[in-house]
Amino acid sequence: MALIVQKFGGSSVANAERVMNVANRIVDTYKQGNSVVVVVSAQGDTTDDLIEKAKEINPNASKREMDMLLSTGEQISISLLAMAIQKLGYPVVSLTGWQIGMKTDSHYGNSRIHKIDGERIKKELDSNHIVIVAGFQGINKYDDITTLGRGGSDTSAVAIAAALHADMCEIYTDVDGVYTADPRIVPNAKKLDSISYDEMLELASLGANVLHNRSVEMAKKYNVNLSVRSSLNRNEGTVVKEVNKVEKMIVRGVARDNDVARISICNIEDKPGMAFKVFSLLAKNKINVDIILQSIGRDGMKDISFTVNEGNLEKTVEILNENKDSLNFEEIKSSTDYSKVSIVGSGMVNNPGVACTMFEALYDADINIHMISTSEIKVSVLINKKNADRAVNVIHDKFNFA
Amino acid sequence: MALIVQKFGGSSVANAERVMNVANRIVDTYKQGNSVVVVVSAQGDTTDDLIEKAKEINPNASKREMDMLLSTGEQISISLLAMAIQKLGYPVVSLTGWQIGMKTDSHYGNSRIHKIDGERIKKELDSNHIVIVAGFQGINKYDDITTLGRGGSDTSAVAIAAALHADMCEIYTDVDGVYTADPRIVPNAKKLDSISYDEMLELASLGANVLHNRSVEMAKKYNVNLSVRSSLNRNEGTVVKEVNKVEKMIVRGVARDNDVARISICNIEDKPGMAFKVFSLLAKNKINVDIILQSIGRDGMKDISFTVNEGNLEKTVEILNENKDSLNFEEIKSSTDYSKVSIVGSGMVNNPGVACTMFEALYDADINIHMISTSEIKVSVLINKKNADRAVNVIHDKFNFA
Repeated sequence: MALIVQKFGGSSVANAERVMNVANRIVDTYKQGNSVVVVVSAQGDTTDDLIEKAKEINPNASKREMDMLLSTGEQISISLLAMAIQKLGYPVVSLTGWQIGMKTDSHYGNSRIHKIDGERIKKELDSNHIVIVAGFQGINKYDDITTLGRGGSDTSAVAIAAALHADMCEIYTDVDGVYTADPRIVPNAKKLDSISYDEMLELASLGANVLHNRSVEMAKKYNVNLSVRSSLNRNEGTVVKEVNKVEKMIVRGVARDNDVARISICNIEDKPGMAFKVFSLLAKNKINVDIILQSIGRDGMKDISFTVNEGNLEKTVEILNENKDSLNFEEIKSSTDYSKVSIVGSGMVNNPGVACTMFEALYDADINIHMISTSEIKVSVLINKKNADRAVNVIHDKFNFA
Repeated sequence: MALIVQKFGGSSVANAERVMNVANRIVDTYKQGNSVVVVVSAQGDTTDDLIEKAKEINPNASKREMDMLLSTGEQISISLLAMAIQKLGYPVVSLTGWQIGMKTDSHYGNSRIHKIDGERIKKELDSNHIVIVAGFQGINKYDDITTLGRGGSDTSAVAIAAALHADMCEIYTDVDGVYTADPRIVPNAKKLDSISYDEMLELASLGANVLHNRSVEMAKKYNVNLSVRSSLNRNEGTVVKEVNKVEKMIVRGVARDNDVARISICNIEDKPGMAFKVFSLLAKNKINVDIILQSIGRDGMKDISFTVNEGNLEKTVEILNENKDSLNFEEIKSSTDYSKVSIVGSGMVNNPGVACTMFEALYDADINIHMISTSEIKVSVLINKKNADRAVNVIHDKFNFA
């Protein structure tokens, strides 16, 4: 007799057969006496197809019109999924972002949720309807359609769960849950029964590809219990929730991120304010910088190295070169030949030996470390891309997860 | 400096090239200093493709969910058309049915428009935007999406023109305007410069295939000047408006309708109330009956014949047979071997010779008339389908339109 929010991604509803599978799954939850709200993404390649259509006409179309276009993808999914549930003989209603009052700011293409007016959903739940909601979309104060950008449907699901005070928000994906490492890389990776929000946040941002950061941040903020489960089987997934007892915890998982570009600003003047100048310039241009390494000054000069997503490499180099005169450096070097490998665990801050163990594993495997970054609950290293999978395995073995 | 509503159908925006053509056309009107509101249908086969998708999952899906699904077709069109206009460098905004406050009743799949809250459109026009509106769709009092059924986009356009007190509502189609007969059947058919609402109504309902009845009825009710034009060329079209001087008018056009099924109820009792019983039964089942012919009673029995659309034939025969006991007839005969050919003109009621001229043309061509129906502004005859095109030609020649 719980209120459960379930979220299914685009591949889970890619064709008629999969839509029926998802419908059956939803109905099972409903038949057990639960109230069910389902958030669904656009089918398979629909969004890409729509983007293609738009590009053919105008590659520089406004983001407002792109959102008007792209939001149809989820509207198609919700109606088809509702039809599938009707076929199974259960009461259902589909609702768009504007119909549930999903209010966002006006950053078309990448909006943030302001609030959800949950009245319509509550009314439908009171009438015993299964409620199917379009993920990824909302409306701004002008009543214009917005989309939430990457990870949008996960975020929609968590926001709805928060607004309705749902007992659980189940995120269905193509993996069984959160693992100690990517099972495709580390065959003996072990599924975690539960994980804390902070650990999940680090794993998500480190390329574990299970949940998008935004949704985990929101879940943490509103204390929404998340469950990551497979849409392909009935296995218990991993629960993401506030974990209080961190004393016993050590490393929870190993993650790898290949989407890394390293940029070095060589021979920049070694005086106060140079790092500020560089990174405020990049922040102003909305470029997220990850690991930063600054060399020790020598002869009044130093090097500043940092990593960005590969997609931002070109733009970053361009911006730096445009400001070569004011920054006064010698040259920019860049490479995409790196991967970031990280270990995550809430107990790490109280276990100084953890980083050492990681470094030892890499040393034993003769893998060179190019950059290091640490936080309270993670240690990341930058290594050559070709060594990445091997690095994940040797670290995973070293920490003895199995 | 006029306010012009333009409506483009699905084939006019079927692909990127056609979308750009339509965009150019709209911009031309805008550049002349006019305020422009454009109503557009779903691209080409989009609606059929969506229906196919739905059928694959549930052929008996609720109409509410079908409307949720189908309304995405127009939302895709409006955003793409807006993008095309952006490419040409003009200010534009696309709006859905709910965004313009197109309020309808709750007959999903075939809704009637209650009213339009024109505020959003007016605001955008005041900001000098070209406004692109999704045709065919609205919302009901529950904020659920509805569609308007056949001819819906034409009706949307006329309703918007009425709400905004537009100077002209231009309906773009694949023909140059309204002709004295279908040019594909009668090569020397002549384009009419203008035609009255009533004449257009008769022509529309008689199968002229240019404008849907509902839109003409609404144009008449709110006195909206309609113009039927080709999206393929820049020719002047036909204006549909209130015409006062009807004295000089005679026959304005000849129409043919092949979608006719004739049903005969044979040997039904010749006593008062039988016709009422039959036709109230059909009305209750929402079957529109067109021409009705009742034989003269003989031996206390008579025959009642009438025509319906071919799509209603099966259902009509079924309903009659289900009520065979209470109606007490001998048998039902039916045939789809007929066409209806009609002449239309406001002056007809004052020119009794007109019907005679029509019958003479058919007699000269040795074409037999099976049923006759007349109104103030039209005369229709039922003839064998194989003679239909020839009949249209001989009547057209007889009235000397050229």
